[in-house]
Amino acid sequence: MPIIRVELFEGRTTEQKREYAKALTEASVRVLGIDAGAVDVIFSDVRKSDWATAGVLWSDKPKA
Amino acid sequence: MPIIRVELFEGRTTEQKREYAKALTEASVRVLGIDAGAVDVIFSDVRKSDWATAGVLWSDKPKA
Amino acid sequence: MPIIRVELFEGRTTEQKREYAKALTEASVRVLGIDAGAVDVIFSDVRKSDWATAGVLWSDKPKA
Amino acid sequence: MPIIRVELFEGRTTEQKREYAKALTEASVRVLGIDAGAVDVIFSDVRKSDWATAGVLWSDKPKA
Amino acid sequence: MPIIRVELFEGRTTEQKREYAKALTEASVRVLGIDAGAVDVIFSDVRKSDWATAGVLWSDKPKA
Amino acid sequence: MPIIRVELFEGRTTEQKREYAKALTEASVRVLGIDAGAVDVIFSDVRKSDWATAGVLWSDKPKA
Repeated sequence: MPIIRVELFEGRTTEQKREYAKALTEASVRVLGIDAGAVDVIFSDVRKSDWATAGVLWSDKPKA
Repeated sequence: MPIIRVELFEGRTTEQKREYAKALTEASVRVLGIDAGAVDVIFSDVRKSDWATAGVLWSDKPKA
Repeated sequence: MPIIRVELFEGRTTEQKREYAKALTEASVRVLGIDAGAVDVIFSDVRKSDWATAGVLWSDKPKA
Repeated sequence: MPIIRVELFEGRTTEQKREYAKALTEASVRVLGIDAGAVDVIFSDVRKSDWATAGVLWSDKPKA
Repeated sequence: MPIIRVELFEGRTTEQKREYAKALTEASVRVLGIDAGAVDVIFSDVRKSDWATAGVLWSDKPKA
Repeated sequence: MPIIRVELFEGRTTEQKREYAKALTEASVRVLGIDAGAVDVIFSDVRKSDWATAGVLWSDKPKA
């Protein structure tokens, strides 16, 4: 408790996830007043061809 | 709002997901009366060896 | 197969969900070429005080 | 992108969720280098009688 | 590890969930060869008016 | 009904998942008094570099 699940576009490095998991856990500890050991973070990579906003796959959207 | 998550057997093409995301989004707009931009669709492919019904993996079921 | 999970703000009526489930199922049948009986739709109501975008709970956002 | 889902024991106040959503979003912006507007946080309260660890519901565990 | 999430129709008693969590955990220990302490089970009650199969809400289906 | 989702570290064999799905389904049938055909089990493999506890990725933890 808590379990934090993060869906994000694939392509982030393990280094970024390492830092991100640490930051999300620290935020949980600080706000909820719990032990870090109680926090699970699970990352779930999503391909841009598997995520659509406004009915359009992100793999089909023109680059900004 | 809303977020639509679809778990489906792997093997669908990007073309099918493109059309499917569009159809799910249009249904959302029509029924809920919201902007298409408010709709996220996320596809999650599941291997037949990762999905069981009635206690049997789909990869083990005889073909119909 | 497939399982469709929809997270949406609470407040939609059963009549809307009835129509929405039907529309999402029909879209699935049409695009994937499957039987309607293979489609599960699960709605999950989310309170505006449980959903934040840009770091702000929707219950705290000024009305448009 | 990203969508952050947090399952936590029920009982947290809206004030705590407000601060928590802000903290998780700031961590996301800092680590991923994205706009805050791209971050969704969804809280899901879980009753202690709906969560078991080691096969025992938390509502049945003796208080520490 | 693992986290087991169970979506089921609302109406099950805490006594049933207590027994169910125990049974799912024991199955995990036996098959995976892990400690019971590594197993989390989370139940999520779903109203029959929030679950549709074949495009029809279970709250609308005639009783068998 | 019910749908059982299991997040576990990648590396389990199909043989283990086959046995695990069977055991989880049997537990469901026994406790809930339902038909096996009503039970879906979906496995979701998680890489150790995608799961953190106490803010540390499992891929970074020293072996026990």
